[in-house]
Amino acid sequence: MKVRNILGDRFKERAFDIESQNLMTRGGYMKLVGNGIYSLFTPAKRIQNKIEAILREEMDAIDGQEVLFPVVMPASLWQSSGRFESIGKELLRFKDRSGADMVLGMTHEEAAVQLAMNVAGTYQKYPFMIYQIQTKFRDEPRARGGLIRVREFTMKDAYSFHTSQEDLERYYERAYRAYERIYARAGVPEVIAVKSDSGMMGGKVSHEFMLLTDIGEDSIVICPECGFRSNMEACEAITENAADPELKPLEEVFTGEAKTIDEVGEMLNVPNEKTCKAVVYQRNSDDSYVLIFCRGDREINETKLTNYLKSEIHPALDIENANLAAGNIGPVGLSTNATVLFDRSLVGATNLVCGANKAEYHLSGFTPARDLPEDTLFIDLTKAVQGGVCPVCGKHALRVRRGIEVGNIFQLGKRYTEAMGMTYDTETGERRNPIMGCYGIGVGRLIASICEEHHDDYGPIWPISIAPWQVEICALRANDEQVKAAADMLYKELEDAGVDVLYDDRSVSAGFMFSDADLFGSPIRVVISPKTLARGCFELGSRDKSFGGDIAIDTAKEAVLDKIRELTEALNAKVPERL
Amino acid sequence: MKVRNILGDRFKERAFDIESQNLMTRGGYMKLVGNGIYSLFTPAKRIQNKIEAILREEMDAIDGQEVLFPVVMPASLWQSSGRFESIGKELLRFKDRSGADMVLGMTHEEAAVQLAMNVAGTYQKYPFMIYQIQTKFRDEPRARGGLIRVREFTMKDAYSFHTSQEDLERYYERAYRAYERIYARAGVPEVIAVKSDSGMMGGKVSHEFMLLTDIGEDSIVICPECGFRSNMEACEAITENAADPELKPLEEVFTGEAKTIDEVGEMLNVPNEKTCKAVVYQRNSDDSYVLIFCRGDREINETKLTNYLKSEIHPALDIENANLAAGNIGPVGLSTNATVLFDRSLVGATNLVCGANKAEYHLSGFTPARDLPEDTLFIDLTKAVQGGVCPVCGKHALRVRRGIEVGNIFQLGKRYTEAMGMTYDTETGERRNPIMGCYGIGVGRLIASICEEHHDDYGPIWPISIAPWQVEICALRANDEQVKAAADMLYKELEDAGVDVLYDDRSVSAGFMFSDADLFGSPIRVVISPKTLARGCFELGSRDKSFGGDIAIDTAKEAVLDKIRELTEALNAKVPERL
Repeated sequence: MKVRNILGDRFKERAFDIESQNLMTRGGYMKLVGNGIYSLFTPAKRIQNKIEAILREEMDAIDGQEVLFPVVMPASLWQSSGRFESIGKELLRFKDRSGADMVLGMTHEEAAVQLAMNVAGTYQKYPFMIYQIQTKFRDEPRARGGLIRVREFTMKDAYSFHTSQEDLERYYERAYRAYERIYARAGVPEVIAVKSDSGMMGGKVSHEFMLLTDIGEDSIVICPECGFRSNMEACEAITENAADPELKPLEEVFTGEAKTIDEVGEMLNVPNEKTCKAVVYQRNSDDSYVLIFCRGDREINETKLTNYLKSEIHPALDIENANLAAGNIGPVGLSTNATVLFDRSLVGATNLVCGANKAEYHLSGFTPARDLPEDTLFIDLTKAVQGGVCPVCGKHALRVRRGIEVGNIFQLGKRYTEAMGMTYDTETGERRNPIMGCYGIGVGRLIASICEEHHDDYGPIWPISIAPWQVEICALRANDEQVKAAADMLYKELEDAGVDVLYDDRSVSAGFMFSDADLFGSPIRVVISPKTLARGCFELGSRDKSFGGDIAIDTAKEAVLDKIRELTEALNAKVPERL
Repeated sequence: MKVRNILGDRFKERAFDIESQNLMTRGGYMKLVGNGIYSLFTPAKRIQNKIEAILREEMDAIDGQEVLFPVVMPASLWQSSGRFESIGKELLRFKDRSGADMVLGMTHEEAAVQLAMNVAGTYQKYPFMIYQIQTKFRDEPRARGGLIRVREFTMKDAYSFHTSQEDLERYYERAYRAYERIYARAGVPEVIAVKSDSGMMGGKVSHEFMLLTDIGEDSIVICPECGFRSNMEACEAITENAADPELKPLEEVFTGEAKTIDEVGEMLNVPNEKTCKAVVYQRNSDDSYVLIFCRGDREINETKLTNYLKSEIHPALDIENANLAAGNIGPVGLSTNATVLFDRSLVGATNLVCGANKAEYHLSGFTPARDLPEDTLFIDLTKAVQGGVCPVCGKHALRVRRGIEVGNIFQLGKRYTEAMGMTYDTETGERRNPIMGCYGIGVGRLIASICEEHHDDYGPIWPISIAPWQVEICALRANDEQVKAAADMLYKELEDAGVDVLYDDRSVSAGFMFSDADLFGSPIRVVISPKTLARGCFELGSRDKSFGGDIAIDTAKEAVLDKIRELTEALNAKVPERL
């Protein structure tokens, strides 16, 4: 394709802070249509098509059957699983012309069960996996970062059905490996799998595939000692408390206007870890209060709290109706209508400062094991911390990093098949619900993540496997007949050889042409100019500057093909074997 | 792929009257999810993928750039063209979580202009064409016929932009030819182009591509003499009236309870063509009346009427407020608040019977040229008829047939670029609106139409180019070791050769296996059984029964590849050259 024919402008001015959004906007990859809704220009669509081809190959290789579910579904389908009611506003609900309730698909578990229901009624039909590549809509409150977090997106979603947990687990391993292959083939072998919280999907075991980057929205906890990796949401928090040699008595201390942990700690000269703080939430459903006590230097993990309570929550807006002394709430002598919970970080702690449930006073000498009822339950409700204890190897080694989620896999279990009444007959004639797994990858976010991982200040550096064009030919002074003839010929030779070639034969300056080429991000570049012709050669270089030099004109095609092969082999070397 | 692994059941019972819907349901191609909304099983998705590949190749060959527009769009985009208000309930409107008005894309002219706007500001960027293959939603009041008329569908839609009408027309010819190639490549060279009404799309010249079939929803007018072809909606109606030698005077005739043309004609012994009838409509906007007079044997073409009035209409529900004598309405001595129109079928007519605007009376001897004011306008508002006059060659040769629309192309002109303010600068610095064309093909409807055209009582007969599997291997008695070994080997050989092979190695009866194979519709079939092995051969046959016979085992792979080549060449022979 010729650069002069590509629709879309490229420009130099920095457009956004997040680099993939900045470069893909500056490079003419996409255009905003509405909040969190984009159109893609042809360079981005070409990348998407190549990623989709990789996804199809890897899904087919694990015995997937490609199907297609609808974007618009009747609400009744989502009512049959209970999610029409349980999911928040991310699920876009509307009425059609006949007044029937409809939804826009944000995920397709219900549709997968509906498709498989009645056509998989005996055990012999199992296992099977169906997948689609389709548009999804999720009414995100906070779209951000270009294609990183959008409302409409293309997703590959797969659903497997099994007759035993063991069979699901075997398949889950194959899917896990297929995912590792997909990321490596797409040029981001850096993507790691972390344990995750299953959230609204149901099910127990699940993993997210994360690209570690500072612009990520997720916190990832990693143990460099043993290789443990988890999303912060799902990471067990372990807090060690060294017991003081001497237990002090509970005593009221005047603290006046000091309310926060920092203020109280400063006034009494006590570090945060020797305090017990109170955090108040409200349930979304009825605004009822939930009060959590934890060590003063810990933070509440809202995902754990939601999972424990089995209801959605938000930080309390006011606590007027909770009969609590704001800023002085403490666990001793408390009288409240709130649900009161104690975090595990308090286990083994001694001589803490906490609220006295009385304005202007705190207590010192609070020792939970002594001062709380014997049957007090301590549960894990806080976040793991940098330098904290690894829940697997027990070393004080945890690191907290930022990551973008570029895929996820779930062991769903019977959550959907039970709710929707999908059954099969076993060999002995029993009726059972199949066990499901599901496996998703958002294509647009993957493209943006690849750009995050592979770019410089001047543009994306696309991996050879997914680059919109593998090679760009820059003909400097294409109005020179010799330059034009040589460039035209190489363009034709490479196209005939099946190479995706971009050809710039515009009458523009070298600087202008090269900055456009940087934004197109083709991994290989050939420069043809009167100067190179005078030397009897072309210049062959890479977008990442790792190589560059003259090549003979008469073997130029072969040199380019060799380079493509070399880059492809280097990339494939990082792709693990199939399971 | 093995038949045993394919999700979806096949069954014998007739499911629906329309054959494509019947066979594709019985064959496990699709499943209804909601009114006019389907999921596709893998056989249908495989066909869709192959059609999409043909669409991409043909669109790329006419310099198309693949892009992607959103399914969900802000209403403001559709307000900018005026269509948010002008289109009826087919356009699904809803509000997102922030209360913003949104629509589901049923077509993407606005999105195409939005994408191209600001990046095609000078004449040098023209012409260009952008296309996508994407899900669309049209809230059809009457979904029917399986994939023939649905609410959600996959569509290839293309939009070209030009700086002159001549350039648009040149490109339109190329697109027209590309469409002919697409249908021929998909195995339906029978598809014909007909002139069409541009309807809600705006613009003037447009064509629909039609597959002629009795289950079609459109009426197509064809002249076998000169090749003229038109959708009934857009077909000029020519009515010849032989003047009677003697003009009779206008006379009141008592007709009592006779109201309809048939009743009055019978009572007075006058054929329908010697009558003038009145038809009453109401405008949708304000229910105001529109009264049309035409020859008694003609029918109103509502599309022409809508276009003439520039407003949507419906047959009058009652005429109480129109001051009209129901059943006796006539053009002479009429007093009404209705808009009164006269159809061209009355030009040259003499001595007609018409209503007398008085209960129980009609007039005889009505001669429009004599009895209507001299400045009466006669306009074309009726349908062409079987045996009628061809508007091109003038012969009484018109045939009326039924057809399914499987694609359309429009010369849109500046309808959208003007409304949305998209401009470019000409070479001389003038600011102008680009001229657009648009080009659509619904993928699902095309699949159903191919099935309509190519099936027998037992199932679809898919063309080699789009068949989900080109070849099916039926291993009868696959529990026989020799059968299994021979069939396994051929399966592997063909898969390794890149053939799409379906392999049935289930332990089922020959009848059961063959009726499934008929429903899968693979154009080529290889049967391997103890009997064929005893003869030292396999059986090679075609789904359409056009060939069948023994092939030697050791050259079986070659024989199958030859047959694929032969069918492919026969199909390609009907594909016209590119323009």
